[in-house]
Amino acid sequence: MPRILHEPVDAARVPRFAGRPSFMRLPMPDTPEGLDIALVGIPWDGGTTNRAGARHGPREVRNQSSLMRRGHHVSGVIPYELVSVADVGDIEVQPIDLMAALDQIEAGIAAICAAGALPLSVGGDHLTTLPVLRAIHKARGEGPLGLVQFDAHSDTNDRYFGDNLYTHGTPFRRAIEEGILDPKRIVQIGIRGSVYAADEHQWAKDQGIRIIYIEEADRLGPQGVVEEIHRIMGVSPCYVTFDIDGIDPAMAPGTGTPEIGGLTTREAQAMIRGLAGLTIRGADVVEVSPPFDIGGLTALTGATVLFELLCVIAAGMNR
Amino acid sequence: MPRILHEPVDAARVPRFAGRPSFMRLPMPDTPEGLDIALVGIPWDGGTTNRAGARHGPREVRNQSSLMRRGHHVSGVIPYELVSVADVGDIEVQPIDLMAALDQIEAGIAAICAAGALPLSVGGDHLTTLPVLRAIHKARGEGPLGLVQFDAHSDTNDRYFGDNLYTHGTPFRRAIEEGILDPKRIVQIGIRGSVYAADEHQWAKDQGIRIIYIEEADRLGPQGVVEEIHRIMGVSPCYVTFDIDGIDPAMAPGTGTPEIGGLTTREAQAMIRGLAGLTIRGADVVEVSPPFDIGGLTALTGATVLFELLCVIAAGMNR
Amino acid sequence: MPRILHEPVDAARVPRFAGRPSFMRLPMPDTPEGLDIALVGIPWDGGTTNRAGARHGPREVRNQSSLMRRGHHVSGVIPYELVSVADVGDIEVQPIDLMAALDQIEAGIAAICAAGALPLSVGGDHLTTLPVLRAIHKARGEGPLGLVQFDAHSDTNDRYFGDNLYTHGTPFRRAIEEGILDPKRIVQIGIRGSVYAADEHQWAKDQGIRIIYIEEADRLGPQGVVEEIHRIMGVSPCYVTFDIDGIDPAMAPGTGTPEIGGLTTREAQAMIRGLAGLTIRGADVVEVSPPFDIGGLTALTGATVLFELLCVIAAGMNR
Amino acid sequence: MPRILHEPVDAARVPRFAGRPSFMRLPMPDTPEGLDIALVGIPWDGGTTNRAGARHGPREVRNQSSLMRRGHHVSGVIPYELVSVADVGDIEVQPIDLMAALDQIEAGIAAICAAGALPLSVGGDHLTTLPVLRAIHKARGEGPLGLVQFDAHSDTNDRYFGDNLYTHGTPFRRAIEEGILDPKRIVQIGIRGSVYAADEHQWAKDQGIRIIYIEEADRLGPQGVVEEIHRIMGVSPCYVTFDIDGIDPAMAPGTGTPEIGGLTTREAQAMIRGLAGLTIRGADVVEVSPPFDIGGLTALTGATVLFELLCVIAAGMNR
Amino acid sequence: MPRILHEPVDAARVPRFAGRPSFMRLPMPDTPEGLDIALVGIPWDGGTTNRAGARHGPREVRNQSSLMRRGHHVSGVIPYELVSVADVGDIEVQPIDLMAALDQIEAGIAAICAAGALPLSVGGDHLTTLPVLRAIHKARGEGPLGLVQFDAHSDTNDRYFGDNLYTHGTPFRRAIEEGILDPKRIVQIGIRGSVYAADEHQWAKDQGIRIIYIEEADRLGPQGVVEEIHRIMGVSPCYVTFDIDGIDPAMAPGTGTPEIGGLTTREAQAMIRGLAGLTIRGADVVEVSPPFDIGGLTALTGATVLFELLCVIAAGMNR
Amino acid sequence: MPRILHEPVDAARVPRFAGRPSFMRLPMPDTPEGLDIALVGIPWDGGTTNRAGARHGPREVRNQSSLMRRGHHVSGVIPYELVSVADVGDIEVQPIDLMAALDQIEAGIAAICAAGALPLSVGGDHLTTLPVLRAIHKARGEGPLGLVQFDAHSDTNDRYFGDNLYTHGTPFRRAIEEGILDPKRIVQIGIRGSVYAADEHQWAKDQGIRIIYIEEADRLGPQGVVEEIHRIMGVSPCYVTFDIDGIDPAMAPGTGTPEIGGLTTREAQAMIRGLAGLTIRGADVVEVSPPFDIGGLTALTGATVLFELLCVIAAGMNR
Repeated sequence: MPRILHEPVDAARVPRFAGRPSFMRLPMPDTPEGLDIALVGIPWDGGTTNRAGARHGPREVRNQSSLMRRGHHVSGVIPYELVSVADVGDIEVQPIDLMAALDQIEAGIAAICAAGALPLSVGGDHLTTLPVLRAIHKARGEGPLGLVQFDAHSDTNDRYFGDNLYTHGTPFRRAIEEGILDPKRIVQIGIRGSVYAADEHQWAKDQGIRIIYIEEADRLGPQGVVEEIHRIMGVSPCYVTFDIDGIDPAMAPGTGTPEIGGLTTREAQAMIRGLAGLTIRGADVVEVSPPFDIGGLTALTGATVLFELLCVIAAGMNR
Repeated sequence: MPRILHEPVDAARVPRFAGRPSFMRLPMPDTPEGLDIALVGIPWDGGTTNRAGARHGPREVRNQSSLMRRGHHVSGVIPYELVSVADVGDIEVQPIDLMAALDQIEAGIAAICAAGALPLSVGGDHLTTLPVLRAIHKARGEGPLGLVQFDAHSDTNDRYFGDNLYTHGTPFRRAIEEGILDPKRIVQIGIRGSVYAADEHQWAKDQGIRIIYIEEADRLGPQGVVEEIHRIMGVSPCYVTFDIDGIDPAMAPGTGTPEIGGLTTREAQAMIRGLAGLTIRGADVVEVSPPFDIGGLTALTGATVLFELLCVIAAGMNR
Repeated sequence: MPRILHEPVDAARVPRFAGRPSFMRLPMPDTPEGLDIALVGIPWDGGTTNRAGARHGPREVRNQSSLMRRGHHVSGVIPYELVSVADVGDIEVQPIDLMAALDQIEAGIAAICAAGALPLSVGGDHLTTLPVLRAIHKARGEGPLGLVQFDAHSDTNDRYFGDNLYTHGTPFRRAIEEGILDPKRIVQIGIRGSVYAADEHQWAKDQGIRIIYIEEADRLGPQGVVEEIHRIMGVSPCYVTFDIDGIDPAMAPGTGTPEIGGLTTREAQAMIRGLAGLTIRGADVVEVSPPFDIGGLTALTGATVLFELLCVIAAGMNR
Repeated sequence: MPRILHEPVDAARVPRFAGRPSFMRLPMPDTPEGLDIALVGIPWDGGTTNRAGARHGPREVRNQSSLMRRGHHVSGVIPYELVSVADVGDIEVQPIDLMAALDQIEAGIAAICAAGALPLSVGGDHLTTLPVLRAIHKARGEGPLGLVQFDAHSDTNDRYFGDNLYTHGTPFRRAIEEGILDPKRIVQIGIRGSVYAADEHQWAKDQGIRIIYIEEADRLGPQGVVEEIHRIMGVSPCYVTFDIDGIDPAMAPGTGTPEIGGLTTREAQAMIRGLAGLTIRGADVVEVSPPFDIGGLTALTGATVLFELLCVIAAGMNR
Repeated sequence: MPRILHEPVDAARVPRFAGRPSFMRLPMPDTPEGLDIALVGIPWDGGTTNRAGARHGPREVRNQSSLMRRGHHVSGVIPYELVSVADVGDIEVQPIDLMAALDQIEAGIAAICAAGALPLSVGGDHLTTLPVLRAIHKARGEGPLGLVQFDAHSDTNDRYFGDNLYTHGTPFRRAIEEGILDPKRIVQIGIRGSVYAADEHQWAKDQGIRIIYIEEADRLGPQGVVEEIHRIMGVSPCYVTFDIDGIDPAMAPGTGTPEIGGLTTREAQAMIRGLAGLTIRGADVVEVSPPFDIGGLTALTGATVLFELLCVIAAGMNR
Repeated sequence: MPRILHEPVDAARVPRFAGRPSFMRLPMPDTPEGLDIALVGIPWDGGTTNRAGARHGPREVRNQSSLMRRGHHVSGVIPYELVSVADVGDIEVQPIDLMAALDQIEAGIAAICAAGALPLSVGGDHLTTLPVLRAIHKARGEGPLGLVQFDAHSDTNDRYFGDNLYTHGTPFRRAIEEGILDPKRIVQIGIRGSVYAADEHQWAKDQGIRIIYIEEADRLGPQGVVEEIHRIMGVSPCYVTFDIDGIDPAMAPGTGTPEIGGLTTREAQAMIRGLAGLTIRGADVVEVSPPFDIGGLTALTGATVLFELLCVIAAGMNR
């Protein structure tokens, strides 16, 4: 099937408050066939241990993404001229049965991968990243992936509330155990907030995960963080996951587990732009929780992060 | 082209917070061809004399319309089994040039009428109803239409701010002057609020418009109002326009010109259900203004009114 | 000084979101001289025992009062054609010293009375009514006043938190003790909500106060309540106080002590209109608390109640 | 263990915004031993098919319950003088594993029953009522219970999203199947809203459930509804469940599945008061969802409903 | 007419929530005669291509400006002791006819200029700056002005939605074409956000406009930006326009076209203070859109920017 | 009485939205006996000169403090393993009589001191700090205390609204006059905002108070500020007061007197951590005003500041 370059609704003709609120107001084809990049929603938050609501994330990120124009003002990238990208809608996933939901998400991403498209998804809570990684890992068959994780939390805990292995605080521990992620090629940026135990991150560190706490990120500056990311990732395949709570809650209040003292959007944008050159197999924006948002600010931040990711990935695919 | 019965996304499979937020989560075909009823957005509020924002109405009514299920609990009507109905998207209309906008709206509705579909639109401010009426009037060629108007305001003023003839306070005066509406077959329900002048409604009354102020509506009760509507409308063609400010602002706060002491939703629902038997040529829900809404309540009310209208119209088309 | 009929800013020329946000967008003269009715703010809530914020009431009621037009759609009264009315601004009152504040309020109202104007004030918490009554009582020298009180609470408690005699729960007990109010000519409408003690209203009843609980108001209907008011008030001088919490919190959420199950605005409006014929010496709208309001709804309700009161009082002065 | 009459924090000493925000500011003993009525939170919403958030219900209902005073203004009941009542805190229930959560809830209520106390709980979504009923049914050993259900929805569906038997749309079907409820002694009040299928309520009706749709409730009036409840319940044991979405969303916007055109609080209060004389074995208020609430209005409504239930139950226990 | 030094309402006497909510609680004289600086509102947003609402800006900026005290804590400037400044109210401008509105705005500013006062206005959308510049340019007769523009957007596009030349995205292109602005003396600070086309800013750059994107502003620091402004402006006459969307949306969410990653208020304040020494002929704060604001934060930011501008301009006029 | 190490509710068992919302979900013993640190609420805002609401601070800070986990991610401190800390509830203080309230607060803190516990309180407005200091000063008998004050305002004014000596703008002047604070050991950080008079801070400076305006704090950086604090404080006893308005209003909007351009949370956290080594006798977080908060952000910031203070103080007590 030939690649078709899809374009957002033309803002010079249709105002941005009008038209179908798909991601970036792009077409919504029935299948991912023929796409280079598939924007996809994963409206599920069954792994949330505290304040749910990320199930509503995809819809509101779509809504705010109407504010995105066609091109990037710094890199000059216009992704729609480089690659075929569209909104393939939401993965069908039900909110009641957790284990079944993980399978539904994996199946949805698998279909995207099978069509040859790279998944760029919007969650949903952070547990959604686990089945996404499973699907990419299987489809690519390239071995364990690296991970660039923007987040306030390491999400490498073992279990919650007794023996629950699958929550939004555990996805990367599971992914390492399953051989999907290479812990030595995981870098976590913006980690902060109070901890359950003094050694809470010890397991992660023992695996070789590189945690750049917010305090170190502050010292390094965005450029220093970017250099560290490249040092660790190299050019081997990796995945980029952006938990919106990596951003400061003043700029992204609508999330389930806010931690003050976070990354500014300016810092985060500079870091995402610095991902150019990585070999990215997929990416996501997660934990945008509209019921806790104020004035759509978090959804706007999420939509802009999505656009930044789209630009850097599209440019990378097109080299 | 054969009629295809479209169905909303199946809520037994896809949760209501997921899936494409079209009206009622219906398909969004590229054209109105083959439809009996076309749900359409008119995101324009350039006729607003006070608090704008109804331009954002269609998107948020779509969003809240996800809460509508398939059938009506009182009448038992399932419109999707009776008629072909879909969401044809928003009419392309720009926010800068008022007179050009009216033409754009008329053209959009004309295309729906040309396809043989009945337009059921979501505004937008109340001036949008004027070009809608123009298009229906031309397409049907049946002579002046009757009008059932739920509203806090008569909207039959002459001009605003000097010589501005076209605002959301004047559409029905213009429509009468243009021969589109038959003033003797206009009934306005829920009128209230302070007035610019003691004789503000005199022109309307002189034309023969039947104004049922909220005080009289209270006395008559929904059943009495319904009888009065039928007495005036008979079985000649008419249009139904529902300004959300007809509803009390506690139940519909998100509107530009709220007036306390309005219709309750229970009363309004009973009255819409009572429209069964009228010969309806089109209908709309207008003045839902999301920037002034709180908690999506007004958009939910608007979406439910839209569903009520859809059910009563679909049942009527199918007799 | 000759009476000058002041007019609101002309909404046919200046949109309602523009212009000086005085009450009804009326002029703000430096003194009350020459006025028949002085609209005045009393931004003070130092008597509030629970949730403060009514100090912000006058400003937000002014803001929302821009939505009021010139005339009354039922009575046809255009107050600005009947009497001289303007906004004389806020009484100077500081928030720190309670007893001094009561004196400041009384002095402010006394100045209005001395100018021959009737005070129509916007609070402020309900304790502000006490110094207002003191000033009117002294200025008029007509003996104890009657009181028509719309409210969720009787406000006739004796003391709070030990020996505090002056709170917004005690003003009418104090006024009775001071001989300002005639308890046999007090009628309280809409009383409801849980009580501190089973006999909490016994003192009030023993004095002869007529309490129309919300349940009785529901049974009597607005017309029945109005008849009861007239039976009790007769044509002797009275004061009308409208605590916004008399209205249901769905319609007036922004108040310090909300009680569900209250009057609807339709009922309240009908009752105020029924006050025509009373000999009114002053009136107020109190307990609008903007920090607890949502979407300006309570301030809008307060502004409309103010306009309703203005119309009925202006018509009465002009007979 | 002798019954101790617990009292709320004294509002004459400690303002209502202060002090521990337990239900009604009552003491929080470590165990339910010695209580007649145990107020208990069930912070769980894992059965929610659409908008979650009821997990936050108990905390916000506690917060708003500070506004409740000691006694009932109509019945004169002061529950704290009649029975021993306290807040026993939240049942420990985790949000990840649905089936385990149902067991946790049942165990929590079983402990209350074992102590001889009647559970008066605050959810949580409506699925929480199922394990509550299981525990009461087992503890009482009196056979199937009757049910008085205030609700917008019948909640007697069979399954969701494939084969999920346990959601907040299915509890009463399960309870009937399990022999816990006697379908012929179930009355549902306020049912409304669009339906999935025209025969959606047929199963319920076939079982003998008495559905009083909102339209019939409107016709009957609160007194008529009360009579119907008593006719159906008689004096056999029953349970009272109050889904806050039975109330109109203007008065209770913070809920997951709002339906316009609902019961007013005045109607609901009158109906609850009319439950006097029933043999009530437990009761709950469910589906208060703070993330969707505005200004705490729904939590206030929920707290007041809780207080109304407490009064009517306490009076009944004390006869 | 002798200069009278007007003073804000004395906050040591009247609390800041009280008193007339004019800009800075200054007097509101009937004419600008005798003023050095006229604070004026321009409540119009008819040029807005996306989310309207800036029409409500002047009123809410006035409201929040009550929080401003008399003097500047860094420069020590007390503007009211240096120059005659007052609030001359809103320009009369209607919302329906765009071209007529531009004339109304120009006439309003012309009257201020004719009185010898410098206009310091609060919009309104950014198109309002065009007629303001026209009026100043004509009144001064000094030739093209320089422009210091704080903004997220260049606002030098050519046309929108077909052939609409006048929108809030085009004012400075029009002003250059009209010979009002000298493009070589325009500096734009904080520009960012996605672009319609890769060469979107090429026309601006070709004219000689100096664009300091947010990324460069970050590198230069406020001091570096200030130096660049002075290098470009020199001491020739200039105008200062502050689009509130130049500020980060976490600090100014209430605007029509927010772009994340913006200036912090600390940076913006430092830059405004650095304008001392410029020859300023007028200034404005635009695009504060209260319907999209949260908690008044944007209006507070706007009011503070207005005060900062007032201080630096007053000090400059008084040298 | 032996020290008992209290633990928060175990988040691995009870989700953070559940359980008693005490500070940090700690136990609430009936007395402070046996505690090293007593967390205590002071729900009073009678000294507020503008926007009240801090009376609601303790409850909402408690609510958000559920988000705090057990340990500090930078220092590794787990306070609950080092010292005995619990929530002793709110001090009983009434809102009507200002002078009596100051006595009530002093008595409440005195009881904590008498039990040998260090008070860590949550206000309330900043005047609450005066009686807290009085109680500590008396109990310790160590002579004047030093003060580390994070704040937007110096709070050393003399009087307000005539002769009111006690407001939230005067506590530290009073404390110096009373010999409780040593002005030469007072450092104020983050001071900014417009001033009533050019010499407003002169009295403070004359006493020897070290004011670090926000501009200097920006230049020094957190580390430089920390060094200055230590230089001034030394190891003599001091008190730490954190007015939440020291933080930027984007990060702490819910406060009575917001000033843009404030400290970021990252800066503030770094500074608090730098207090290690000081001899701290008590601390507070004040001016969190929930009615003006948005999305609980300010309460979350306040709760985190409280946790930061708890960690640094607990570590210091345990050396």
